[in-house]
Amino acid sequence: MNVLIVYAHPERRSLNGALNDFTVERLRANGHDVQVSDLYAMNWKAPLDATDVRERSTDAPFHAALDSKHAFENGLQSRDIEIEQDKLRWADALILQFPMWWFSMPAIMKGWVERVYAYGFGYGVGEHSDKHWGDRYGEGVMSGKRAMIVVTTGGWESHYGSRGINGPIDDVLFPIQHGVLFYPGFDVLPPFVVYQTSHMDDARMQATRDALGTRLDRLWDDTPIAFRKQNHGDYEIPRLTLRDELAAGRTGFGAHIG
Amino acid sequence: MNVLIVYAHPERRSLNGALNDFTVERLRANGHDVQVSDLYAMNWKAPLDATDVRERSTDAPFHAALDSKHAFENGLQSRDIEIEQDKLRWADALILQFPMWWFSMPAIMKGWVERVYAYGFGYGVGEHSDKHWGDRYGEGVMSGKRAMIVVTTGGWESHYGSRGINGPIDDVLFPIQHGVLFYPGFDVLPPFVVYQTSHMDDARMQATRDALGTRLDRLWDDTPIAFRKQNHGDYEIPRLTLRDELAAGRTGFGAHIG
Repeated sequence: MNVLIVYAHPERRSLNGALNDFTVERLRANGHDVQVSDLYAMNWKAPLDATDVRERSTDAPFHAALDSKHAFENGLQSRDIEIEQDKLRWADALILQFPMWWFSMPAIMKGWVERVYAYGFGYGVGEHSDKHWGDRYGEGVMSGKRAMIVVTTGGWESHYGSRGINGPIDDVLFPIQHGVLFYPGFDVLPPFVVYQTSHMDDARMQATRDALGTRLDRLWDDTPIAFRKQNHGDYEIPRLTLRDELAAGRTGFGAHIG
Repeated sequence: MNVLIVYAHPERRSLNGALNDFTVERLRANGHDVQVSDLYAMNWKAPLDATDVRERSTDAPFHAALDSKHAFENGLQSRDIEIEQDKLRWADALILQFPMWWFSMPAIMKGWVERVYAYGFGYGVGEHSDKHWGDRYGEGVMSGKRAMIVVTTGGWESHYGSRGINGPIDDVLFPIQHGVLFYPGFDVLPPFVVYQTSHMDDARMQATRDALGTRLDRLWDDTPIAFRKQNHGDYEIPRLTLRDELAAGRTGFGAHIG
């Protein structure tokens, strides 16, 4: 199978660099083809702006969605965006690997999402009507592909526990796992999280490699998170609220897992 | 009072641009001093990396936290970072204004947070012991200052309702409001959210301005979100889990509001 790793860390000689090397080696040893988009090494342009559209008139105001639609449909996207989209088309699985900074992905990776997820590719796909609200949240261009987050954090596991002060790790990652990965159609596997990165000795590093290796070996076997599909009856359309009888009385991100 | 607006939108001739202009005018009309960090206009460098530290030896691996600490303590931060930190010191209130992209702030603003929130300034402040886990979540350098998000989104309000498919807006914004603003000590006001931005006519625009104006008029009167303070008895330290008797049985972000 084909695996794309989108990787964001400013220092190769780091825990993240070591885990990235390990991931590539393990997947290749398992017979997979691997590409790595090392965003810092690529000097990836983070901000989405009008220069992402080629041959653009500067008279009209730039509109992130409409300009993206125009560029995507007419082959006028910036070349660096097209290259990443081709990698996503090629991939059977996507791994996002990053250090958690301020409870989300690094800016450079956020900019990869914003620019590569064009209108017509990452969003704005499919019909919008009173019965179907676009091909998203379980449908879309990435349907049939798998995705997984590999993330490191200095915080303790208890700080990200069900009643930990940072919020539960599943909720902290929900805007990415549900909003960035499930949205365009990926099946999302549970995340691989490394906590307390400043307390990493050889024994813990070996245990971390072993655990990550097992997850990579099971990339096509593990059960994805059961996020509810938008257009399969769980939500009222177009209000897109969860039907009363499902997860009755519950609110919050967890209600959107079946 | 002094208000810093950190603003991220690639097109001045936009809804966000209009709301930014309105905000500046209204605050000045109310007698406040206003500075705007217009990140796109400033061509703000988004990625955090080793070039953020001046006079840095390239022999040692770059470490985001330790290098930031060294640079902050020794006056070796990149000048653009120091300028923004001075604006934060000057400000009595911070407004983050942005379009919601992929359920978070634009990459360029995320990069502002990552780079300006230095170790010793935005985090890594105060003693860490078994009784006090740093000056954060209610304490810190920004104590006594207020903060508010002004955000636009194409989605409907119901999609961000308590059982909406995107997750409740308060949960979607929690990593920013709690993790970026409350963390270094800001008192965080409820967000001002504009939904369905593609359906904006003159009447709705006027109503939006009026509502935003009222919020700006009450910047020092509105009650902040009651996020629980870390070091005031609600959490077990150092596990930082909410005490059993508080919000008993509840999990998720909402449990951290008293």
